[in-house]
Amino acid sequence: MCRWIAYRGRSVPLARYVTEPEHSLVRQSIGAKEALGATQGDGFGLGWYDRQLEPGLYREVRPAWSDENLRHLCRHISAHLFFAHVRAATSTPTTRPNCHPFIHGRFMFMHNGSLGDWDLIRRKVEALIPDAYYRSRIGTTDSEAAFLAILGEGAEHDPLGALMRTVASIAGMIRASGAPNAFRFTSALTDGESLYAVRYAMPREAANTLYFREDEGDLVIASEPLDAEGSGWNEVPANHVLIARKHEEARLEPFLEEKRAAAE
Amino acid sequence: MCRWIAYRGRSVPLARYVTEPEHSLVRQSIGAKEALGATQGDGFGLGWYDRQLEPGLYREVRPAWSDENLRHLCRHISAHLFFAHVRAATSTPTTRPNCHPFIHGRFMFMHNGSLGDWDLIRRKVEALIPDAYYRSRIGTTDSEAAFLAILGEGAEHDPLGALMRTVASIAGMIRASGAPNAFRFTSALTDGESLYAVRYAMPREAANTLYFREDEGDLVIASEPLDAEGSGWNEVPANHVLIARKHEEARLEPFLEEKRAAAE
Amino acid sequence: MCRWIAYRGRSVPLARYVTEPEHSLVRQSIGAKEALGATQGDGFGLGWYDRQLEPGLYREVRPAWSDENLRHLCRHISAHLFFAHVRAATSTPTTRPNCHPFIHGRFMFMHNGSLGDWDLIRRKVEALIPDAYYRSRIGTTDSEAAFLAILGEGAEHDPLGALMRTVASIAGMIRASGAPNAFRFTSALTDGESLYAVRYAMPREAANTLYFREDEGDLVIASEPLDAEGSGWNEVPANHVLIARKHEEARLEPFLEEKRAAAE
Amino acid sequence: MCRWIAYRGRSVPLARYVTEPEHSLVRQSIGAKEALGATQGDGFGLGWYDRQLEPGLYREVRPAWSDENLRHLCRHISAHLFFAHVRAATSTPTTRPNCHPFIHGRFMFMHNGSLGDWDLIRRKVEALIPDAYYRSRIGTTDSEAAFLAILGEGAEHDPLGALMRTVASIAGMIRASGAPNAFRFTSALTDGESLYAVRYAMPREAANTLYFREDEGDLVIASEPLDAEGSGWNEVPANHVLIARKHEEARLEPFLEEKRAAAE
Repeated sequence: MCRWIAYRGRSVPLARYVTEPEHSLVRQSIGAKEALGATQGDGFGLGWYDRQLEPGLYREVRPAWSDENLRHLCRHISAHLFFAHVRAATSTPTTRPNCHPFIHGRFMFMHNGSLGDWDLIRRKVEALIPDAYYRSRIGTTDSEAAFLAILGEGAEHDPLGALMRTVASIAGMIRASGAPNAFRFTSALTDGESLYAVRYAMPREAANTLYFREDEGDLVIASEPLDAEGSGWNEVPANHVLIARKHEEARLEPFLEEKRAAAE
Repeated sequence: MCRWIAYRGRSVPLARYVTEPEHSLVRQSIGAKEALGATQGDGFGLGWYDRQLEPGLYREVRPAWSDENLRHLCRHISAHLFFAHVRAATSTPTTRPNCHPFIHGRFMFMHNGSLGDWDLIRRKVEALIPDAYYRSRIGTTDSEAAFLAILGEGAEHDPLGALMRTVASIAGMIRASGAPNAFRFTSALTDGESLYAVRYAMPREAANTLYFREDEGDLVIASEPLDAEGSGWNEVPANHVLIARKHEEARLEPFLEEKRAAAE
Repeated sequence: MCRWIAYRGRSVPLARYVTEPEHSLVRQSIGAKEALGATQGDGFGLGWYDRQLEPGLYREVRPAWSDENLRHLCRHISAHLFFAHVRAATSTPTTRPNCHPFIHGRFMFMHNGSLGDWDLIRRKVEALIPDAYYRSRIGTTDSEAAFLAILGEGAEHDPLGALMRTVASIAGMIRASGAPNAFRFTSALTDGESLYAVRYAMPREAANTLYFREDEGDLVIASEPLDAEGSGWNEVPANHVLIARKHEEARLEPFLEEKRAAAE
Repeated sequence: MCRWIAYRGRSVPLARYVTEPEHSLVRQSIGAKEALGATQGDGFGLGWYDRQLEPGLYREVRPAWSDENLRHLCRHISAHLFFAHVRAATSTPTTRPNCHPFIHGRFMFMHNGSLGDWDLIRRKVEALIPDAYYRSRIGTTDSEAAFLAILGEGAEHDPLGALMRTVASIAGMIRASGAPNAFRFTSALTDGESLYAVRYAMPREAANTLYFREDEGDLVIASEPLDAEGSGWNEVPANHVLIARKHEEARLEPFLEEKRAAAE
């Protein structure tokens, strides 16, 4: 399990959400309330957009709660769109390339969950990645592989479609693998303009938590509410995606299987 | 708060106590039961004696629970006397020189607790350290300063006396400083032969936990019992020192103020 | 030996001087030409001023040449005043608090050189630091101690005077210590507005190199020229300080002993 | 380029070869003489055999020259068979899983060189790895992939044959890829009993250096002689393997293509 936040709105110092709130992401790194374990101390990462097309990235293997650099960067970097992530490793080593978020060109991605039993489907998921993107695979996580598969599926022209098709492909692989472990895919993808936040699981009831809050056009999405009371936060329903396109209000959309289930 | 273990007995692989038990020290690094916080993820250290006079030392800033090196070393290093420590930093940075144990020549020391308000007495404690030992101060913790003060107080010839006199000096400084914080000094000292494990606090009731177990001459001392049930473990009473001299059985001895209180 | 650069001028991405030039600071970390050794791989640091009063800081123990975070930050952080430093440790451990630059409030400092034989004068230099600043001593280098001594000497009201008086005090201590090692103090100090770059040594001929270049009001100061040819770079003479006050052109001024020597 | 040493003989402290000699491996990490660059500061590793079947392993991303842990371990760990490696990364990140040596069960491997243009043949080399070994791929280097391919080729029953067949397969892939970069494969493999040290390149003249010295049955193999004079050291000829089977003297054997070339 991991914890993450994504932000889109007016340009703000990252500190406003990453370090300052009572139940900030950094606080969640050592005292999460809705995760399997309270500690997400296996590295962390920040990715942010400023006036450049490609995001900046800071990833580190030390726990977020003791990283002085993180506090400095959060006070001194402002962004209108950023991701932040604290990691609780499942089965891959604690290295910087295994920390989230992942970036490629103007795209950025992060993930909380796991792809069933990674050993059983790793080669199949990696086979989804076209050669042009495979050379960007510098780590060994299931999350990075999923990201590169999404890019290979055509994220450049249709990010949301590529994301959903890749989730469907991976779900099929996991089903076929016979793995007892669930497919948990609470994740966020952006091309630097539009933001897509997914809360998905197979089975549905295994979905990791995800919340969002809108305040005068500023959108915050988080694994757990950032304040103790949790007021003003809405839950993203399982198997839904929160879509925040450029210059548009955020809206929820169900995954295809959710629509089908609803129609039955 | 930190968690530690000390061992004296037949030569065993460190793994037997550091990584293998159900509630091993590494398990305590992410799920301590009797500490202020469950997580001691601010670095760790191992110090051990083999046939050489001076101990070996491995210290690292990453959390113990994810350190592959630690697992390897614990399987492949055996010792008849060793210390292991997982750190929850209070006010000093997470650096290797600030991790326990500390060594100097054939001496080794580790500590769980704090010296009142360190900012108020730091200079006074550092002034206790003779020049010959001050050049060995490579970190900034109160614990390392206390260790070097003990050495300067004559540990070479009278380890226990030097330890107790230093504790008394520091207690006086803390009392004089007016600090509201307690003096917590659950610690272990060895010269490579005899082992002294202290559970001390001022006020007495603030003492951090300490347990020991003897099994056919093998002595294990730990912040928390290493198994879930805790059977066979004895508590070290507050303001007592457990003395395990070479070729002698371990025995408990009260601090001077404890004797006085008992005599009243 | 270390290598460093300081910049004051129009706001630019740090990359322009830290990573992009042919003989950039990062290039100097693995291939310095005018240092004792080619490799300065014992950590590095960046400190920069933006619209806030206090600088941002990023320090890391890994070599600069392989740090992906450094490259990202240099592309995405712009500043009108910044320091960058790559370290070749002399006698203190490779920890983040021992990496340069050092900051305190709005002040920032970095250093290339050494204070004679540190073991011989450490306590005397630390004694120069008033209590109010001593609690900010989180590392163990001679450089950080000198910085805090300068602050204690009144840098708040007279930075240059405090710097020069502290250098004189330390020079006296080194002379008295009988250390055979030179006092090398090629350093930079700023309060966020004015910048003071010192090239000082005792004896004079031991002074580490220092260069500067001005280009339409943008001032770059560096241990070594940042381009292969070195054209347009001026040497700071030994025992001089380059003074770049806010809204003023940079000018050179000799140390007092340099004036005296010239007068003889 | 990297530097490495391998040892087989009487049990000795690792320090005898890793840290103590005038031109020890640690010295080579910052001042190599026969490598492309003098600095191999992108991590390092130790792997050693004691009475257990599987080797111990210590790998770290910091430079070898400043790692206090390395010095302690080398003084306190003795082995009759060990590998040590200092890394100069080519195109993969500086992470612990990318540091050498690599281990799997009782096998251990390390490498100095590169597999042509890794991006061009990565997928093909990874496809050589059977599923049972692919789950052990925790890094992203060409070296680790080659090791797992050798294991998959049947190292369990015929280590040398598996090694040579894998080298031939990879050579074919590189030739087919049209990469301008050479295939450099100066490497060592052991099953904990027999030791195989390879100096191979395609083209032959691109071979990285390799030397060995025997002294009363103790065999040391090194990228560069460990003493300044280099006396007593023999060069391993290009495209040869040095074979040191259990209880047998070391002997040189040419690669198949070397035999063919000699026969022409």
